Amino acid sequence: MPSPVPDKLKPRIRDTALILWKVYTLFTVAETLLLMIGGMSFFDALNHAFTTMPTGGFSTKNASVAHFNSGYIDAVIIVFMLLAGINFSLHYQVLRGRPLAFWRDSECRFYLAMCLILTLAVGANLYRTAYADAGQAFRYAAFQVVSIVTTTGYATADYELWPPMSQSIIFQCMFVGASAGSTGGGMKCLRIMLCLKYCYKELFSMIHLRSVTRIKIGGKTVPEGVVRSVLGFLALYMVLFCGSTLLLAGTGVDLVTALGAVAATIGNIGQGFGMVGPVDNFAQISYWGKWLLSWCMMLGRLEIYTLIILIVPEFWRK
Amino acid sequence: MPSPVPDKLKPRIRDTALILWKVYTLFTVAETLLLMIGGMSFFDALNHAFTTMPTGGFSTKNASVAHFNSGYIDAVIIVFMLLAGINFSLHYQVLRGRPLAFWRDSECRFYLAMCLILTLAVGANLYRTAYADAGQAFRYAAFQVVSIVTTTGYATADYELWPPMSQSIIFQCMFVGASAGSTGGGMKCLRIMLCLKYCYKELFSMIHLRSVTRIKIGGKTVPEGVVRSVLGFLALYMVLFCGSTLLLAGTGVDLVTALGAVAATIGNIGQGFGMVGPVDNFAQISYWGKWLLSWCMMLGRLEIYTLIILIVPEFWRK
Repeated sequence: MPSPVPDKLKPRIRDTALILWKVYTLFTVAETLLLMIGGMSFFDALNHAFTTMPTGGFSTKNASVAHFNSGYIDAVIIVFMLLAGINFSLHYQVLRGRPLAFWRDSECRFYLAMCLILTLAVGANLYRTAYADAGQAFRYAAFQVVSIVTTTGYATADYELWPPMSQSIIFQCMFVGASAGSTGGGMKCLRIMLCLKYCYKELFSMIHLRSVTRIKIGGKTVPEGVVRSVLGFLALYMVLFCGSTLLLAGTGVDLVTALGAVAATIGNIGQGFGMVGPVDNFAQISYWGKWLLSWCMMLGRLEIYTLIILIVPEFWRK
Repeated sequence: MPSPVPDKLKPRIRDTALILWKVYTLFTVAETLLLMIGGMSFFDALNHAFTTMPTGGFSTKNASVAHFNSGYIDAVIIVFMLLAGINFSLHYQVLRGRPLAFWRDSECRFYLAMCLILTLAVGANLYRTAYADAGQAFRYAAFQVVSIVTTTGYATADYELWPPMSQSIIFQCMFVGASAGSTGGGMKCLRIMLCLKYCYKELFSMIHLRSVTRIKIGGKTVPEGVVRSVLGFLALYMVLFCGSTLLLAGTGVDLVTALGAVAATIGNIGQGFGMVGPVDNFAQISYWGKWLLSWCMMLGRLEIYTLIILIVPEFWRK
């Protein structure tokens, strides 16, 4: 579970791993049962639980979750996608009897508030443009926003048929990603928060020239080294995104597909725009394009540095 | 002339301004004469010189520079766009008898090398796909790459008909911009260079944990404060780009137009993609869309901080 600032739940890594395994198993079992109550077969329910918790997004059906066309199933999956996108150390705290742990964590607040606000924005945009019924508009909006923000990649609607503002939100969500320490990919909320606070701090320091304002997250000052490496990460993410888009466009796919496919793979989402939209797959991408996107998926999953460091000559010296 | 690190040519600002005016006038006169030699009327030549040097990009003809359809005129304008995109303090040095000043400046090397490499890449991509003749492919590639990188915005070809890789390069060029201290907009080469060096430094520091490597540009260490403010600028640029794209998409334009129009206005280029491509104009953008894009143009031209600081509450206190 990648994160810019690793949490240590227990002094020994073995104990931490055991706790995370327990939380993970508990959620998987709970989701399987809840999906079966909604009418799914055991096989379908188990498989969907197996791909919700790791924010993988594969479905047993070609139409993904849209196949079941059930508000209840959508709701269950939305809740478990949201849970999978929360830092697992918070789940542990909640299960240990600290129910306000989600609320006390500033990243978790940011993440949940963002999901809520974007759902409302997309839902309002969809109502009367894509869906005549407000309930449907917000149901599909919630599912798709949460699916993309958590980088799960399930689909209940073809967002490429939605109005431009919703498409624009979905596209930008591909970069944000879930919480640090969750199973989600993307840039991660913590880094986005830190970057926004950094921007604000820079503006602030233009007014109060001599002030040395430190960046705080959750009341704690973020060490200078962490701020530096987070900014480096975000810059590197964008540099690699731009470079990969360019190379993928070189294989002949159109600009929208190139942007969407690279965003979807580097963010580990699985569905993009254009040729690789929510009702398409990556089969039409060329041989070299598939190699490139495989590399992007690894880059995103291993949080860039782990992989990119291999191509720095210094690494191989000595 | 905006720049992250202002140059002082002379101790007194009056003398510096006078030098810059002289250089500017000299180039304008030279370009007017050279364009007249190429067959332009005095009026057309003067107007094109008037919009090349400030990298403005307005033409007296609806078809822009494509109207004249002359390789000579294209070449003259390419050269003067390139010159307008170079730091004006370097022009002063060259005119004072230091002909190697362009070469000695690392930003200028980066800028010229980038223009050359991208021209070659686009030209190679256009040959046999968009133009049967190699000469034409490289001529249009050079003009369009230089026009976009310098944020001038003249057009001799409709790059939206070009293959995806060339489109992707053109789109990314919209963000790069010309040199600091030139008349161009965009992020500026110096900031891009600094950001790339920062990324590399961060990778490097993961290998040599204790090394404190400083970022150097042109042999001089860049002060920590400048690095911080440049990263803040780039982050803020992207945040504002994302936010504005979202709002513009909210006015109903498609995703590609939204991305292209915001990139074109915040980078002060003038031509984007989709509804605002090189053969279109912004007339079809809605009332609120035009307000938004006007704001983007000001943001870009005033280098963001100057304008955005007005919305920080702290600024108004005291």
